[in-house]
Amino acid sequence: MGKKIGKQSIKIESKPKIISAFSVVGPKEGEGPLSSFFDLILKDDLNGQKSYEKAESSILYNAITKCIENAKLKEREIDFLFAGDLLNQISSSNFAARDLDIPFFGLYGACSTMTESLSLAAMVMDGGYINYSIAATSSHFSSAERQFRFPLEYGNQRHPTAHWTVTGAGAMLLGKEGNFPYISYVTVGKVKDYGINDVNNMGAAMAPAAIDTIKQHFADTGRTPKDYDLIATGDLGRYGKKITLKLLKEYGYDIESKYIDCGEEIFDEKQSANAGGSGCGCSAVVDCGYIYKKMLKGDLKKVLILSTGALLSTTSSLQGETIPGIAHAVAIEYGV
Amino acid sequence: MGKKIGKQSIKIESKPKIISAFSVVGPKEGEGPLSSFFDLILKDDLNGQKSYEKAESSILYNAITKCIENAKLKEREIDFLFAGDLLNQISSSNFAARDLDIPFFGLYGACSTMTESLSLAAMVMDGGYINYSIAATSSHFSSAERQFRFPLEYGNQRHPTAHWTVTGAGAMLLGKEGNFPYISYVTVGKVKDYGINDVNNMGAAMAPAAIDTIKQHFADTGRTPKDYDLIATGDLGRYGKKITLKLLKEYGYDIESKYIDCGEEIFDEKQSANAGGSGCGCSAVVDCGYIYKKMLKGDLKKVLILSTGALLSTTSSLQGETIPGIAHAVAIEYGV
Repeated sequence: MGKKIGKQSIKIESKPKIISAFSVVGPKEGEGPLSSFFDLILKDDLNGQKSYEKAESSILYNAITKCIENAKLKEREIDFLFAGDLLNQISSSNFAARDLDIPFFGLYGACSTMTESLSLAAMVMDGGYINYSIAATSSHFSSAERQFRFPLEYGNQRHPTAHWTVTGAGAMLLGKEGNFPYISYVTVGKVKDYGINDVNNMGAAMAPAAIDTIKQHFADTGRTPKDYDLIATGDLGRYGKKITLKLLKEYGYDIESKYIDCGEEIFDEKQSANAGGSGCGCSAVVDCGYIYKKMLKGDLKKVLILSTGALLSTTSSLQGETIPGIAHAVAIEYGV
Repeated sequence: MGKKIGKQSIKIESKPKIISAFSVVGPKEGEGPLSSFFDLILKDDLNGQKSYEKAESSILYNAITKCIENAKLKEREIDFLFAGDLLNQISSSNFAARDLDIPFFGLYGACSTMTESLSLAAMVMDGGYINYSIAATSSHFSSAERQFRFPLEYGNQRHPTAHWTVTGAGAMLLGKEGNFPYISYVTVGKVKDYGINDVNNMGAAMAPAAIDTIKQHFADTGRTPKDYDLIATGDLGRYGKKITLKLLKEYGYDIESKYIDCGEEIFDEKQSANAGGSGCGCSAVVDCGYIYKKMLKGDLKKVLILSTGALLSTTSSLQGETIPGIAHAVAIEYGV
């Protein structure tokens, strides 16, 4: 049984193991620099479905079911599914859950969903009363463009600081037994809003939340950047990453030598993704693909992942609201 | 520390107490039969805000802060806030959380959010490492009409089996100490879809999920309808309630003598709410107002509450999808 540490962190004493992880990405992500780490690269970003929304739901379903299959488990053995996505009413997750025989908690944390779902799955596992839980999320470039920006058919021009929503889904399966990377700490984020209202600069909108949660994680746990081999924010992109580095340095934490942003890593500059990747799927596939596999290989031993969410809605933006952000941190360790 | 019972239920051994609850409703709800049980009745359903969306967020904020205040606690003493709502990107909850200094988990379970948030709050409390958590949700007639149906200005006619979204917000604060109603069991729902595609008959769409969770609660816990003084579904309304009663009877559970639906209770037939109330706020204010106060008075000792959610999106409906539903059950006891 864990304990609360400081103001926002939980030490997960039972150290739930990530016994399986699965990542699915679209064709563009499959052409990026992390290509070799993804479990499934789609040839067709519709995944055989009739709409982008149905496609997104189907890849989330794929990620969850393959994750279970790879752990040699059955759906009915999974106690809880924690999932969410970017679509209105988290329809990708709801329709994926409809086809799964697993008790389901629907979440909304925008692009922070991977670590939101993982935090909850870890905390509930730590209660000691369940055996397996799944944390999962997805996003799709074309469903997100239609909902948050413009339908693709408009041929809208993209702003230099705009992100490219990742088409992808990731799932992690937590269990009690086995020799796998395990979760040691969770730091739960607060909603932060520093008055950014530029919907084409999500990195700046999310950076304050990322900075706040990283700072709080160090303050609560007594850890420092030296304790980690890698600190990976969700999808701040190259501009949000710069802000985060700079401000954390001002707060006395220099993370530069071990810091990556999943949004910056997933696409090559040649791929015209501007600020970098975003969407719930961005940190999900980098965490479930690249980071998890690097940990299994022994290349990374202590990692802090932080998915970062911009909590705007098109309605709130039209009503003159600024863009709040949130970030949750999860510390994963292996072979330490 | 609790334990898993049967397939979908958790026995919450630590019995977290509902040390405070607060309900805010709009003027129409304040004219209904449960009027005397609500803590705050708005005179103006805009609550002094410039939009219905901002109004909804403000009443959720009111419910949460008053709930904390009534327990003589401070915001900073609350470990976690679990909240969600019906609006796209749960904007009511995100903007309410922005003004609160509390680590936040955003949820989406449509109208099942009150028991979804309460289930998670109770399970995390049961881990033993936190002192206080809040479960909260809201809905607003006018923001929901604009988003899911038509802007009010259209003067659209309402279908006889349509619901009237409740303007209201409810919050419950869980703590470890004191003589208060406590949570004994949680039964986590699965997504159920029996092929209903009539967006004007949400009761029929949600009934299968309610039936499944009630049935599973009895199967898992060994309890029967006799063990409860009251079983209250969220917002099936008068038509969904009939289906639920009939089918549960066929499954061998006669709950008729102790069964209410919050959607049917909140409005009088004279109030032209057709099938009854709906929205996350419906079960929230009936649970936080009527049921909680009846328990404190000793009029009810063992209650099973089930908020019920219809997981449609306007996009999924336009793409020919049917309407999935979900329901989570929470057993509350006092003076037993």
